[in-house]
Amino acid sequence: MTAAFERGFTLTRPLSGGAAMLAVFSDTAAVQRMLDFEAALARAEAAHGVIPQSAVAAIVAACNAEQIDLPALAEAAASAGNLAIPLVKQLTAAVSRRDAEAGKYVHWGATSQDAIDTGLMLQLREALQLFHTEVDGIIDALAQLARAHRDTPMIGRTWMQHALPISFGLKAAGWLDAMLNHRNRIIALQADALALQFGGAAGTLASLRDQGLAVAQSLAQDLDLPLPAMPWHTQRDRIADIATALGMLTGSLGKMARDVSLLMQTDVAEAAEPAAPGKGGSSTMPHKRNPVACAAALTAAVRVPGLVATVLAGMVQEHERALGGWQAEWDALPEIAVASFGALRQMREVAAGLSVDADRMRANLDITHGLIMGEAVMLALGGRIGRLNAHHLVEAASRQAAANGRHLREVLGEDQQVTQHLSPQELDALFAPVNYLGATGLFVDRVLARHQQEQSS
Amino acid sequence: MTAAFERGFTLTRPLSGGAAMLAVFSDTAAVQRMLDFEAALARAEAAHGVIPQSAVAAIVAACNAEQIDLPALAEAAASAGNLAIPLVKQLTAAVSRRDAEAGKYVHWGATSQDAIDTGLMLQLREALQLFHTEVDGIIDALAQLARAHRDTPMIGRTWMQHALPISFGLKAAGWLDAMLNHRNRIIALQADALALQFGGAAGTLASLRDQGLAVAQSLAQDLDLPLPAMPWHTQRDRIADIATALGMLTGSLGKMARDVSLLMQTDVAEAAEPAAPGKGGSSTMPHKRNPVACAAALTAAVRVPGLVATVLAGMVQEHERALGGWQAEWDALPEIAVASFGALRQMREVAAGLSVDADRMRANLDITHGLIMGEAVMLALGGRIGRLNAHHLVEAASRQAAANGRHLREVLGEDQQVTQHLSPQELDALFAPVNYLGATGLFVDRVLARHQQEQSS
Amino acid sequence: MTAAFERGFTLTRPLSGGAAMLAVFSDTAAVQRMLDFEAALARAEAAHGVIPQSAVAAIVAACNAEQIDLPALAEAAASAGNLAIPLVKQLTAAVSRRDAEAGKYVHWGATSQDAIDTGLMLQLREALQLFHTEVDGIIDALAQLARAHRDTPMIGRTWMQHALPISFGLKAAGWLDAMLNHRNRIIALQADALALQFGGAAGTLASLRDQGLAVAQSLAQDLDLPLPAMPWHTQRDRIADIATALGMLTGSLGKMARDVSLLMQTDVAEAAEPAAPGKGGSSTMPHKRNPVACAAALTAAVRVPGLVATVLAGMVQEHERALGGWQAEWDALPEIAVASFGALRQMREVAAGLSVDADRMRANLDITHGLIMGEAVMLALGGRIGRLNAHHLVEAASRQAAANGRHLREVLGEDQQVTQHLSPQELDALFAPVNYLGATGLFVDRVLARHQQEQSS
Amino acid sequence: MTAAFERGFTLTRPLSGGAAMLAVFSDTAAVQRMLDFEAALARAEAAHGVIPQSAVAAIVAACNAEQIDLPALAEAAASAGNLAIPLVKQLTAAVSRRDAEAGKYVHWGATSQDAIDTGLMLQLREALQLFHTEVDGIIDALAQLARAHRDTPMIGRTWMQHALPISFGLKAAGWLDAMLNHRNRIIALQADALALQFGGAAGTLASLRDQGLAVAQSLAQDLDLPLPAMPWHTQRDRIADIATALGMLTGSLGKMARDVSLLMQTDVAEAAEPAAPGKGGSSTMPHKRNPVACAAALTAAVRVPGLVATVLAGMVQEHERALGGWQAEWDALPEIAVASFGALRQMREVAAGLSVDADRMRANLDITHGLIMGEAVMLALGGRIGRLNAHHLVEAASRQAAANGRHLREVLGEDQQVTQHLSPQELDALFAPVNYLGATGLFVDRVLARHQQEQSS
Repeated sequence: MTAAFERGFTLTRPLSGGAAMLAVFSDTAAVQRMLDFEAALARAEAAHGVIPQSAVAAIVAACNAEQIDLPALAEAAASAGNLAIPLVKQLTAAVSRRDAEAGKYVHWGATSQDAIDTGLMLQLREALQLFHTEVDGIIDALAQLARAHRDTPMIGRTWMQHALPISFGLKAAGWLDAMLNHRNRIIALQADALALQFGGAAGTLASLRDQGLAVAQSLAQDLDLPLPAMPWHTQRDRIADIATALGMLTGSLGKMARDVSLLMQTDVAEAAEPAAPGKGGSSTMPHKRNPVACAAALTAAVRVPGLVATVLAGMVQEHERALGGWQAEWDALPEIAVASFGALRQMREVAAGLSVDADRMRANLDITHGLIMGEAVMLALGGRIGRLNAHHLVEAASRQAAANGRHLREVLGEDQQVTQHLSPQELDALFAPVNYLGATGLFVDRVLARHQQEQSS
Repeated sequence: MTAAFERGFTLTRPLSGGAAMLAVFSDTAAVQRMLDFEAALARAEAAHGVIPQSAVAAIVAACNAEQIDLPALAEAAASAGNLAIPLVKQLTAAVSRRDAEAGKYVHWGATSQDAIDTGLMLQLREALQLFHTEVDGIIDALAQLARAHRDTPMIGRTWMQHALPISFGLKAAGWLDAMLNHRNRIIALQADALALQFGGAAGTLASLRDQGLAVAQSLAQDLDLPLPAMPWHTQRDRIADIATALGMLTGSLGKMARDVSLLMQTDVAEAAEPAAPGKGGSSTMPHKRNPVACAAALTAAVRVPGLVATVLAGMVQEHERALGGWQAEWDALPEIAVASFGALRQMREVAAGLSVDADRMRANLDITHGLIMGEAVMLALGGRIGRLNAHHLVEAASRQAAANGRHLREVLGEDQQVTQHLSPQELDALFAPVNYLGATGLFVDRVLARHQQEQSS
Repeated sequence: MTAAFERGFTLTRPLSGGAAMLAVFSDTAAVQRMLDFEAALARAEAAHGVIPQSAVAAIVAACNAEQIDLPALAEAAASAGNLAIPLVKQLTAAVSRRDAEAGKYVHWGATSQDAIDTGLMLQLREALQLFHTEVDGIIDALAQLARAHRDTPMIGRTWMQHALPISFGLKAAGWLDAMLNHRNRIIALQADALALQFGGAAGTLASLRDQGLAVAQSLAQDLDLPLPAMPWHTQRDRIADIATALGMLTGSLGKMARDVSLLMQTDVAEAAEPAAPGKGGSSTMPHKRNPVACAAALTAAVRVPGLVATVLAGMVQEHERALGGWQAEWDALPEIAVASFGALRQMREVAAGLSVDADRMRANLDITHGLIMGEAVMLALGGRIGRLNAHHLVEAASRQAAANGRHLREVLGEDQQVTQHLSPQELDALFAPVNYLGATGLFVDRVLARHQQEQSS
Repeated sequence: MTAAFERGFTLTRPLSGGAAMLAVFSDTAAVQRMLDFEAALARAEAAHGVIPQSAVAAIVAACNAEQIDLPALAEAAASAGNLAIPLVKQLTAAVSRRDAEAGKYVHWGATSQDAIDTGLMLQLREALQLFHTEVDGIIDALAQLARAHRDTPMIGRTWMQHALPISFGLKAAGWLDAMLNHRNRIIALQADALALQFGGAAGTLASLRDQGLAVAQSLAQDLDLPLPAMPWHTQRDRIADIATALGMLTGSLGKMARDVSLLMQTDVAEAAEPAAPGKGGSSTMPHKRNPVACAAALTAAVRVPGLVATVLAGMVQEHERALGGWQAEWDALPEIAVASFGALRQMREVAAGLSVDADRMRANLDITHGLIMGEAVMLALGGRIGRLNAHHLVEAASRQAAANGRHLREVLGEDQQVTQHLSPQELDALFAPVNYLGATGLFVDRVLARHQQEQSS
């Protein structure tokens, strides 16, 4: 057991399913992205004559996270108050060993937060790209589900009670429609939320004298990050924008996970997560297949709202550098990204491999012995015997059916008022859920059309 | 005291300062917006032959919140589980009194959530318009502050310690830059987040048979709300989008309020909220002027993150109608809107009427007896005697100044190494904060230019 | 529509079900409790000669919320920053009309927060009493359920999958055990969390000179509130103690509501909320009985965590009077109390009137065709043919049963290895869930014994 | 860089200052505590003849976290859904290598959650002990501050404005009083919140047949954990109790940190965190001493409320094993403990080493040129010329003083109405803040007496 483990609790992190995002926010990656800033800073400052060109090579060569002593870094950070101060020290020492003169120009004119925030922005750029790809993936899988089950009837459940028939495609289209919204949000974040951070000790770049803006422009170009109108050390709306968008994404994934886990109940059994060796099985109870992926997404949906609240609460920052609000982001933001991405990965796999049991869906439609079709019969009968009469007739028959455990079709089939106006075939047709789906198919088509359109744009 | 008061605690609500928003979310307004949905529904359904044209007049005439018994409504809602069920009952009774036949067609084919959600969307449209106007207002006020104080020097504070000089215009530009981001977010919400809700009992519009989509289109047109690809009863990302955007806005306003309240401390006294009769005065302590507006904004900044978390947590909704997640929005969303808007109103007034004491800012720059200018001297001296020598020299002088309570300018003025290279005039110039502002002015200009550009676009 | 409605949104408040708690926190009650403080203050100060005895009668007589103009109060509060300033003004005017001299001694030496916090404490005392009573009520109802269904077998569900048999009494005992914990928390709060607030403008009672402590003692005695060691204007842990305890209570009630709503699914139908006229019915779908009470409790469980976070976040208060953190409590605390109490009332009614369908529970135990009893058979067989052999045999039989849709009992009954060691009667007994309940009954007994013991203590 | 780093982001964790708590919740410790459960389980089951006595030695010997492959564990957990499943697999393999027969009896009759929850309880027991010790430490330090500065006058600040004199001892006593409350909460948690978790797959201990309760009793005794009335797999109020208590503690520490950081502002300079080499210094700005400890506590105060909300939200758990709510605790609870403990450590050091500048406090009392003493003069004068006259006189003088930048003492000294009744000496005495402290000293004494009393009890 290395000391690394003792810096905290990491064993449960892979449980989220967000391994790729863990890599983006790993300790090594976090350090490397700050070093990317330092290297680019040296290049930009040399280009504008702020530091000697001769210092660049040694600085750039040392900007390699593999050469940083991470445990020492972590320990020193505790006293310094942030990671950049001890990192710059280690970097300066490393550069000086190569070239004593170059060592003087490490981190020139920058402040700790410049390195930390810009490093974070580079991480977030990668993170957003992963989210974009993965959202595209779940969108394709959901579109396929919606298309394949456009006309697969199942019961619609409101208040967790059987209500009226829908199609499974409509349910999938609902999930899909939300994901299309989320894709647009991610695209907007990629365009608007990223920005270079570079302002020096108090946000004025004073130590660069009249070269501040020029260096900032070169630096932004080098790192391919947008140059904001001014430094934003204590204006955190960009960060909050990403945190909240991921919070919303997690909420939608949690909704999907709630739905799937409800459908997967032993008592319902209309759908099931894809099986995988070692996944969700129970050694003591061979009949069980636990909704492990849904549980991971639901876990994220419980955790992320509180973390988003933390980021929002942290926005209240003091003057030119905050006392607590900024620092609170350091854990909360990676936690959000990893949990949210894990939920996305998990639910993408669920969407792609979902077992849908259309027969069971069909069978469950009949659990209430036809009561869910009462409205359909009532509307049909209303045209013949008047709406009010139809209402009373069907209501009475429903009560009778429920009380005697009989099927509503059967009870109505014995009622002369009914048989007078509806043939057995007509009555059968009225009790076919597929005949009472209203705009279901059209809604599915509209969502699929939206998907087509946004994909090609 | 009427029973109305006993339905809850309302006295503290005006404290937020969001009176105009309270009107948008008042009980009467909430009921009226649901009735607007019911009236438009009747028109749309009659247009497509779903209900008789003759029923429309009586329904539309009764859709008036003034005629609704609100206390009875509230009481009945407790049993029914939502407001729409008893409202439709009252409405039906009212319509039937006018025209018994028309009474049969009230709320035809719709579900409670259709009325509640569409009503909410109509309220949110008004709310966003108010936010837009008010954000425009604070932007103008902040732009004026930034322009007027582009070159007013003050101390920049990091970790709540004196750091380096900035200008007050830079601080105001920071607030402004964030508000420009928020304006864009509000514009995006106005374009994307609003949508008709219309799906009937299970989201299929089955009871409208093949007229569902056509009625939905007419209804959307009538209410001037976008028609979504499909109903979104349990997909709440639109709602969360608005909640989170207001959460971010509140965070930025809280940051501004924190700054102003820190500047307004008796010990700092660099700025003060505008005075108003009866506002923030203390009868027992005539010398006090309490930052009442800032306190209101800070209160909102404490409250809103938890409320946003509620909305995000509530997104995990079951199947076709939720059990708790949806209902949790009913209080949380108006709370967010009112608190956030109150903070915006308050800080707009602060921005518009802020007393800025440039003399005191100038005086406070000197509290550390010149220590904050050490970096400037060091950089200047570095060019003459080498950077390392300069560093040591200034550091030693700073320690000496701090220990003896003398001004750094004075200590340095007695050092031959210094006087050899820097004339008294040069030294004076180096100690002028206004000469060490770096890109401050350019940053302010860039933010103002952004404002110009986005305003005209 | 009176202006009262326009102060905000109150229609949804009764939906929580917490009407009695709404009365405790109504506007009138809030004002009356502050006036109770003012009256007691006059009495205490007169007793110690701080104000003239002759002033008491007029002050006490005017301390009546019925005589306060609440709308004017609310409006003035917005400027003043709190309710006490305009309330003291109205009170002073009312006293002066009675007795001009007495008017000078209203609120003598006190600060706004003294009146607001002590008033709140008086409200919280009432609130805790209501909680105590209602928790006692749900405890009795749950104890009855646990006792009555100690041996009613049902399926235990883990990960929302059928696992092993439990009894319904065990589930109820779990709810009960948590409620017993909560009762103890409420009792502890009644003993420890309440306290007088009285410190004057800066918490020193300076304006009372050397009579401060004596007056405080009399005041505490008069109001029957504990006298704390010192004023606690910006130390809010007492408030947070109540908020968090209610947050935990709400969480436990939400768990119970989740369970009941899952049991009440049309697909499961093992239990149902008590029916009541107009409660949870659906006019369009007569077969539905919506879990309205559970929904209210689940709504509270979504809302309260964010509100508790608000109270905790608000604890970070500045010096001797806070800027935002305190004010954030004003809405959050009543919201918590009302939502939490509503959830409690609702679930108490659910507990008291729950329809338990033991037949359906029994039937649902067989949904997996005996697979849930595999472990029982395996353990029994293990004693005869060795544990490993038994494991393999049952596993194979389970797979076969699942694949062919046959009952595990049937498959095993055809296996010679089994029939050699187990008679049909023995096999039948092994498949009786009631025979595989382990310590279920003992656990129920232990919880009931705990209830007995704590009740009598 | 080992793979360990890639499991997540750990570098910022030591920034909290809670290193000792990180050790309690380290990966190794978490695994060891689960293994402690497994070892004790084997002993207890052998004692009751459930498993062979001969199996115990091999099981106990293998229950050593040093022998567990943690990276493999983490990876397997992602599929399995929790840590216990792969841990039991590794443990079983290790035991079997020693003794094939013993391998069959690992984890006998237990469920994953039994091991995870009991392991957590063992961690929480250690955590609470650390909290207890550290709270005792901060209490002693604060008591010393309160005693030493019982009569050190300083300005009391309300709304961040100068109000009336207090003593620094009163401020420290306020912090202390809250910490005394927190100590009592921790003691209560140590008595009530800890409990064994042991229920088997569905909480019935069915696989132990009639030995379940006896084994549970022995197991509880072995681990020295209270035996609860029944298993509490989905009743999480014990966990929430600890989470919320730490949330409150963090809030109080955040309040203290806010106070200290405000006092430490360059503009106020009345107190400062203890200096330490490398702590809070700024290389570029030698005059700065950043409040690093306060920042860490404030960071915790921003983070913890959202995490507590997560734990509360997670209480809504399904049936006999939860889907998300339980799993959400796994990260949230250690985060809370580490952040909260870090804040406590930091503020204990602040309390123990705080630099208090009594001279500066005295000087700052005069910033308002005597206005803060107006109330004292008014009360004194009121006895001579009538309260109303005194009020008008002082008010006018205050306005005059403020307008002309003169000292109120001076203005009043020129007023004949004043000099007629008050000698210069009397006037001087009235302007001595130390003469207008009311019950300040008594309040400090009361808190110190409370400390004495609770310490000895």
